[in-house]
Amino acid sequence: MSERSYHLKELARECRKASSIVAQLSTTEKNKLLQTMAKVLLDQKQDIIDANTRDLSKARGNGLSDAMIDRLVLNTPRIEKMATALQEIAELPDPVGEITKTWYRPNGLQVSYQRIPLGVIAMIYESRPNVTSDAAGLCLKSGNAVYLRGGSEAFSSNQAIADALHHALESHRLPPGAITLVPTTDREAILEMLHLTDLIDVVIPRGGEGLIRFVNENSRIPVIKHYKGVCHQFVDASADVDMAIDLLIDGKCSRPGVCNALETILVHSQIADTFLTKAAPILDHHGVTLKGCQRTMRILESIQPANEDDFFAEYLSLTLSIKIVDSLDQAVAHIAEYGSDHTEVIVTQDYANAREFLRRVNSSVVLVNASSRFSDGGELGLGAEIGISTTKLHAFGPMGLQALTTKKFVVQGDGQVRHPL
Amino acid sequence: MSERSYHLKELARECRKASSIVAQLSTTEKNKLLQTMAKVLLDQKQDIIDANTRDLSKARGNGLSDAMIDRLVLNTPRIEKMATALQEIAELPDPVGEITKTWYRPNGLQVSYQRIPLGVIAMIYESRPNVTSDAAGLCLKSGNAVYLRGGSEAFSSNQAIADALHHALESHRLPPGAITLVPTTDREAILEMLHLTDLIDVVIPRGGEGLIRFVNENSRIPVIKHYKGVCHQFVDASADVDMAIDLLIDGKCSRPGVCNALETILVHSQIADTFLTKAAPILDHHGVTLKGCQRTMRILESIQPANEDDFFAEYLSLTLSIKIVDSLDQAVAHIAEYGSDHTEVIVTQDYANAREFLRRVNSSVVLVNASSRFSDGGELGLGAEIGISTTKLHAFGPMGLQALTTKKFVVQGDGQVRHPL
Repeated sequence: MSERSYHLKELARECRKASSIVAQLSTTEKNKLLQTMAKVLLDQKQDIIDANTRDLSKARGNGLSDAMIDRLVLNTPRIEKMATALQEIAELPDPVGEITKTWYRPNGLQVSYQRIPLGVIAMIYESRPNVTSDAAGLCLKSGNAVYLRGGSEAFSSNQAIADALHHALESHRLPPGAITLVPTTDREAILEMLHLTDLIDVVIPRGGEGLIRFVNENSRIPVIKHYKGVCHQFVDASADVDMAIDLLIDGKCSRPGVCNALETILVHSQIADTFLTKAAPILDHHGVTLKGCQRTMRILESIQPANEDDFFAEYLSLTLSIKIVDSLDQAVAHIAEYGSDHTEVIVTQDYANAREFLRRVNSSVVLVNASSRFSDGGELGLGAEIGISTTKLHAFGPMGLQALTTKKFVVQGDGQVRHPL
Repeated sequence: MSERSYHLKELARECRKASSIVAQLSTTEKNKLLQTMAKVLLDQKQDIIDANTRDLSKARGNGLSDAMIDRLVLNTPRIEKMATALQEIAELPDPVGEITKTWYRPNGLQVSYQRIPLGVIAMIYESRPNVTSDAAGLCLKSGNAVYLRGGSEAFSSNQAIADALHHALESHRLPPGAITLVPTTDREAILEMLHLTDLIDVVIPRGGEGLIRFVNENSRIPVIKHYKGVCHQFVDASADVDMAIDLLIDGKCSRPGVCNALETILVHSQIADTFLTKAAPILDHHGVTLKGCQRTMRILESIQPANEDDFFAEYLSLTLSIKIVDSLDQAVAHIAEYGSDHTEVIVTQDYANAREFLRRVNSSVVLVNASSRFSDGGELGLGAEIGISTTKLHAFGPMGLQALTTKKFVVQGDGQVRHPL
């Protein structure tokens, strides 16, 4: 075993030990800790900005793209936002200890489900350094310890944030292991982390599809992940055309680079002419490039053809595919074939079709007459989001604090035995 | 790609296709199907017994142990029990479609969690052929298709059971893929299954620790598993001695070979003398071999010493380790160090200690004054059990029909957009 691998394991062991202390903190203790964490981020703002400056000059030297640099930058407003996020997490209800259901058995046993922390949560993430404090806040509030492995570009920034947070832990007499930042950033280190099955309970990767696939391929620890969002909006024959256009513009244009943005619009043939001729100039005004099926091209003659690959694509840009369908059945079948189980919208005034779409489409978020952009932990009312899952095990869709807990059975009796002698 | 691997993938593809049909069945349709499945098992009883006879004669030829042979045997009472199990599953409430929570957002959006099937559930199991029909019943009732890979010893029996169940599917015009039995039994076939990430949603291995570790090491698909049960009973200073003895005898002796049987009893030093001198002859009468810590051996002089390995052991036999502790704290620490997160009991008359044990012990089932043997899906009121999970992701503890579902977000609006223009 290499020295480094010993080190990673030793760090995970300290994190695990800390997790059993964090699991027992009261809600008040956790909330005070989060407030202190917010305070030290502001107190040590200059150290964090200095560290970030070092990361940025390295990144520029390595020729990182402007988009990557932008994700990396920490300045006063961004650090204030990180602090505010921690304060907001402090104000969320504590999921730990919640009894979600209680029932009695015929023999008098009282059985309950009760939420408990997961234990140690490993986050593997790329350039954005704010994930360091966001993840620490969410994991601690839900009674877990966190084992963080950030990206190499943000190495110094993450270290400075972790240093600040360790001051907060120290002032509450909590072990530094509760927020563990792994000091190595190569993929070999990830590989080693992914085999610490006795010490880490779940791995949440956040970043590009390459990183997420690497984690999923190599992990022996359960992984919660999401690859991509190919989100659809179906404009039913009975749709309110203006509403359908508003929802389309919001879904496609308000932030095209995120996973809950629309990629494909499915239009019922009975309304296609009216809807498309009215929507096209508005989309054009917003700079959207349209690609359509053969039937769409008969209505909008100047647009590009959409091929099979287009319907599978997550454009992450202002491109939209259009397909005309003859029924709700065909829309549902298209989503089942090309979708990514992320988020789907129906725009309709028809009661039966709204019900049928909600019943038959089993993506993580299914909406009637609302924008796909609401598929987000904050917008749905989960308070804050640790990530989003498009695999169905444990959590499906946006994940808030509850997704960082599990449930145990609590059984209270008066001496009941199963096989009376 | 070998011909077989193509075959396995093709079968999984058929199973996946069937899963989207099964997911849409109404509760009535599913219940009728399960009733028919029960009926055909009885109708084709003789074919199943004949197939089982072939397996048994092979097993005897291969020198299988009596215990293994016993698990393999199918006779009229056992087939009737399988049919009854299917009828009982038909009578359980349908988890699919259940809205577990609904709330409104300030903008008027109505958000709900709704249960949906997982999709395709793969079961990998060893000798007991009844798992074939039990798993099929539970998976279909929860709206899933099932991909079964049974043990080589039960090859013909499993095939005969699957044939019967396919008759039931056919008579309800459902595709045979809904219950897929993989016709190969070697480990290579398991390896190939475990890489079908796009076709299978979850893998549940049932059998020896070797099989379960193999599945967990090699799966790219999420796995729900449990390795072993090292269950504890803590006899607190305030315990009712007779109750503690009744619970111990039930927990240890009613079925020592199962995972919810007790392995270690922790006794508070203030009650140790009274409890142990009263319990020892009763345990002896039940044929239990005792192993104790140094302090126990001062009270029960004739017993064997318990070493470190004993406290980690899942005996699966009539052996019990005993340790004397000085406090609830020490009991909780012992469980954290040696336990398997399965099931723990406290026997106490003290209100504060009962609460503290329930709060601090985060095993999957924690009981006050009740036998560890209640840690079972049927006994806790889940209706039927597909397995038990000692990992915390998705499910923790006994798993019933609900554990075979996930939840989607259902959002209903009136045209809400996230960023009004």
